[in-house]
This record gives sequence, C-alpha cells and structure tokens, in this order.
Amino acid sequence: MSQPRPFNFSAGPATLPEEVLQQAADEMLDWQGSGMGVMEMSHRGREFISIYEQAVGDLRELLQVPANFRILFMQGGGLGENAIVPLNLSRGGKVDAVITGSWSTKSTNEAKRYADVHVAASNLADRHRSLPPASSWQLRDGASYVHVCSNETIDGVEFHELPDLKALGSAAPLVIDFSSHVLSRPVDWSRVGLAFGGAQKNIGPAGLTIVVVREDLLGHALPSCPSAFDYKIVADADSMFNTPPTYSIYIAGLVFQWLKKFEYAGKSGLAAIEQRNIDKAALLYAALDSSQFYENRVAANCRSRMNVPFYLRDERLNDAFLTGAKARGLLQLKGHKSVGGMRASIYNALPLEGVQALCTYLKDFEAQNG
Amino acid sequence: MSQPRPFNFSAGPATLPEEVLQQAADEMLDWQGSGMGVMEMSHRGREFISIYEQAVGDLRELLQVPANFRILFMQGGGLGENAIVPLNLSRGGKVDAVITGSWSTKSTNEAKRYADVHVAASNLADRHRSLPPASSWQLRDGASYVHVCSNETIDGVEFHELPDLKALGSAAPLVIDFSSHVLSRPVDWSRVGLAFGGAQKNIGPAGLTIVVVREDLLGHALPSCPSAFDYKIVADADSMFNTPPTYSIYIAGLVFQWLKKFEYAGKSGLAAIEQRNIDKAALLYAALDSSQFYENRVAANCRSRMNVPFYLRDERLNDAFLTGAKARGLLQLKGHKSVGGMRASIYNALPLEGVQALCTYLKDFEAQNG
Repeated sequence: MSQPRPFNFSAGPATLPEEVLQQAADEMLDWQGSGMGVMEMSHRGREFISIYEQAVGDLRELLQVPANFRILFMQGGGLGENAIVPLNLSRGGKVDAVITGSWSTKSTNEAKRYADVHVAASNLADRHRSLPPASSWQLRDGASYVHVCSNETIDGVEFHELPDLKALGSAAPLVIDFSSHVLSRPVDWSRVGLAFGGAQKNIGPAGLTIVVVREDLLGHALPSCPSAFDYKIVADADSMFNTPPTYSIYIAGLVFQWLKKFEYAGKSGLAAIEQRNIDKAALLYAALDSSQFYENRVAANCRSRMNVPFYLRDERLNDAFLTGAKARGLLQLKGHKSVGGMRASIYNALPLEGVQALCTYLKDFEAQNG
Repeated sequence: MSQPRPFNFSAGPATLPEEVLQQAADEMLDWQGSGMGVMEMSHRGREFISIYEQAVGDLRELLQVPANFRILFMQGGGLGENAIVPLNLSRGGKVDAVITGSWSTKSTNEAKRYADVHVAASNLADRHRSLPPASSWQLRDGASYVHVCSNETIDGVEFHELPDLKALGSAAPLVIDFSSHVLSRPVDWSRVGLAFGGAQKNIGPAGLTIVVVREDLLGHALPSCPSAFDYKIVADADSMFNTPPTYSIYIAGLVFQWLKKFEYAGKSGLAAIEQRNIDKAALLYAALDSSQFYENRVAANCRSRMNVPFYLRDERLNDAFLTGAKARGLLQLKGHKSVGGMRASIYNALPLEGVQALCTYLKDFEAQNG
C-alpha cells in the first residue's frame, strides 16, 4: 500500500491495525518457517498450541484477569451468548436485567426463554439516551445473575463505572456484555462474574467470542445446554472441546501483541489505548456539541468512547454527507438502520488522525451546507 | 515463496490451495479497491454481501443443491451441530442413528440429550472397519430423522453410496455429517434431508459450519433451541441473524472459485476433483496393500478417499517414520490419539504430487527399516 488507508468507522466487523493485517498477510502461506499457514494447522499441534497459549496469556495480562477466572474462546457471537449465558448460569431460576439499549433488550428477550427474567431498570422511556442510576435498580433476592450491556453499540451509551452489586444489596454475579468496548479500558473484575464479547469490534474477525468467567460459575449448565456451549466442558478442554476458530484466535493474538506494545502520551499498553480513546472521543463529541448542524443525543455522563451516533439536524442531507465522507476516505459512517442518522465507531484500531479527519469533514460539510 | 510448500496431511484444520492463500494475502489490506480488508467490512455492507452471495451461489452450483434446500453458514462446528440438529429436527421424539466410527458415536451420544435415540446399526463389533449393510439397519417407524456420518475422519470409513431410506421402508429424512468429505464428490440430494459439515477439512478455516437443509425441515425447533442456532431463524435472515464468520466465508468462497476452475483428466469442477481424489486414494491404498510393512485395516468397499489411517506393523518405528517424513516435507501424518498409528488426510487441496511423495517415502522407509 503506497497511499494511506481510508479511515473505516464500521461498528463491526471493524477496522484492524494495519501492522496486524500486514503481518497476517506476510505469514499467510508459511507461519514462522513451519511450512504451513495458520489456517492449515491442526489445533492440537504444537504450533497452534503456542499461538493459543500466547493469546490467552496476553489477554489475561492486558485485562489483568484474576487467576480465579477462566478465559474461553467460543463461537456464536453475542447473540449466541444471549442464550448460552442463561443456559449456563440461570439454573432455570431468576435473572435480573438492566435495559439500556438495543443489545441489552435482545439479551433480555432471549434469556426469557430459559429463566424468570425481571427488568430491574430501563432507560426505554428516555429512548436509551441515559443510564438508570444503579441506586434505582429493583434487584431481586436469589437472582442467579444480573445482566448489563456495558457499552451499547447502537445507542452509544456506555457504563463508565460498573455497578457494585454488593453495595446495592445483591449477592448475584454481574454479567456484562462488553463486546463493543472490550480492551478499550480496564475491567473491574471485583464487580464482575462473567464478561462476554464478540471479537469483531475491538479484537479481530467475526466468529470468535471471548468469555471470561469466574470459576465458581462453571458447572451449572441446564440439561438442554449443548456440550459445545457448556462453559465447564469448554474450560476443561482449554477451549478445544470442538475445533476452535483457529485463524480468528491467531488474529486476536496479533491484536493483543499490538496492544501490549502500544504507546501514547507517555503511557503503554491498555493505559495508552484508553488515553487515546478518551482523547478521540473528547475531540469528536466536542466537534458535535459545538455545532448547531449536528447533534448527539446521549447524556454527557454516559456517552460511549467507542460508538458515537449522531444526526444531521436536516436529515435530507444524509446521503450527501455520506457521499462526501466516502470521497474523503471516511468509510461506513451510516447509522444503524434501527435508529438512522450517522454513527462513528472509533474503536482501538482507528487512529487519532481518523477522528481528526472526521472532525475536519464535519466542519467543512457544515460550512458548505449549513 | 521460492521453494515448493511442504505437503500437509493434517486431518483438519487442513491444507488449503496455495492460490487461495496467495489471493487472501494479496487482498488482506484492501479488498478489490474498497479500502478495507475483508475482516474489516460490515457484514451488512454491499461489499461483504457480494462476497456472501457469490459463495452461496458457487456452493449451490458445485454441489448441485436443489432449489428446495437452503444453504446456511453457521458456527460451532460438527460438535455444535451434534446438538443443533436434534434441537431443530427431533421434535423431542425418535431419532435413529447408525454408528460407523468415532464421529457418529459422538453425534449419537449428544442427540440422546434431546431425543429418544435408537442405534439402528453399528460396526463397533468390527472396530469401525466396515459398514453395516443398509439392508440390516433396524429403522423405526416415526423417527424424526436418521443420522449417518458419511465419512468418518478418524476411522477412515466412507459411504460410497448414501442409503436410500425410502427403499428401506423409512419415511424419515436422512441427516449426514459430511464434514470431512464435503465437495470431494457429488451428493445425492434425493436421499438427503440435511447435511452439515465443519469447514476446516475440505473448505476453509475452522469456525465456519455449512448446513444444507430441505425447507420442510425448517421451523420445528425445540423451545430450548438458542435463536442463533434455530435453522428457520438463520435461514430467514440469510445467515445474518448474528454476525456470520465473515472472513471464513470469504476464504470458503475463494476455495469454491478454485474448485469451479479446477481441471483434471479432461474434466472440470467437482467431477475433476472427484477424479483426482479417486486417483490419489487408489495410489495410496495400493502402496499400503502391496507392502507387508504397513497396513490399512478398513474393508476395501468402504475405504475413505479423504482420510487414510494406516499402521506400521512394527509400531516401535512410529517416531522414526514421522521424523523422516517431516524431513521430506510430509507434515502432520500422526494418527488420531484415540486409534494411534498414522493417518494421511488427502483432501481436495492436497496435490497428487503429495500422495506420490508419500508413496515414495513409504517405499524408501520400508527399504531402510524393513
């Protein structure tokens, strides 16, 4: 590539670091002198086992996952986990759920097929634009878990602090769907029982699902849970009960290595990427807020650092906006069909320069059309 | 790559055509001028939709899938499908199963968790080395389906003709697990209700599962079936209810295009690859049978064209055999741990020259050690 790559704001599958893609291309036919590409390796051979162990170890280090949590590489994505979580954790009993947007709504509806689900709080009346304060949640005694989507990809709402369920009087483990902001910031594991996420936003290719689960939550699957999706079976087999999505794990591993080496503003690793994410988000929200031409509708205290939905106040200009963006190499800015408008997903791999270019375009388009 | 690649006999994930890997490497950072790699594309964007539609169309053409069958791209592999099939098809009733090796045994055991499973026939007494004749199968009235593994990857047993259940007096649809010989030969769809297979043997990367299902079998899932694995929901969403494993579908699509252009012995496409598979298998079995040093233990009429397990009569030489093979660029010949010995998986992408090189090595090693 002699010219710079366009900036890709897709909500997922999403942009990946150029260095990662380049290394993957270079190693496609021969991984480190093995005579095989990674796609062609037995998952039981020492070559792939070394890739797997490095990836698990690096993810554990990046997210500072405590020793009493297991890291599982699974399949089926977030929508698959919406069933797999209650199949494994609900014991057919009570589940409390907090509705904060499209994804937590989907999770809640799917869980109802397996458990007695109670909506402990919801921001629906506010059209998913704010977060119901944890102090207002109606949690039940004896819930098997409490489900939260810690970053709503479509609505652009993010928990900047995870709820402390113990302080709220609940003994239930917290389950978080962190698909769209995993690895963008640290996780407070003292408040979490299980976290899951599809890889295709901040990690790597679609088709890999990350599950981080506290060991005491293993081994309680309902009888109807498929063996391949039983956390205990998967954990006992080191994610190799069935053939894992090997190439996706390899790409995820390259992303983890990229993150470990990442430096920004005098910081390194996850702290560095978090700082850059803070700076990118601040830049973009400031550009939107300073204009009467665009608007972001999410309450300031829970705006997502990853997914920034915004609207042109004159929506007749939407098509022209997208056409002009593409001409400048700003790709996939169209909003989700369920909410319309625009959305800039500014995941880890999207450079600061991408947000700067978008902000410049916002100004220029407004100047021409405002 | 200036020197030829080693020959990789892995049972799966398995060798892929060099041209496919080269094209994937070339397009890694920029697919056809889109400014995005395939891993970075929204699955709802027109670029990926075109990749998906081409792949489905090419697979339909290659396997001559009739119009009343749907092609689904799913996740979870063969072991996932072992639960997903009974969840979708059993209606909690009767399932008949034919045991022919390790994979059909696993499928049968998993199905027992969802249905009343009856073993209609088994070759266990023969240590999975022959096929029980269809005329001997004890099929039940009212079975929701009959399960068969049409090629046993570990045991090296293949159905060279699918059973005609109607002729056997059963009205049940036949379900075949064709993971390890899909696209190596045609499928007689008049005898099949559903076929499933993990992609990582003859198609592409691990993490993609192909399901080809007759439309009248959709819509009967048990209430406990996760939405993401409900065939009707997946079919209605064109395999995009959840984010599909997009990069794996892309690689599979490249393999389909490679197959469509494949020429051999005056034939083209699937007929050509089948002829080469016949020739490769004949060469290897002849080499084994002509020796007193090696043995393949499977009955001649049901030997797999894809997976050839064999044994050195003096098993103390196993390690030396594998070391010598690797030194000649003949990789991953070790047999499955459950049966020991050796196994040469000679899938579509393994060239004739690979089998020739293996046959030469068989002779040379015998000459040195026999």
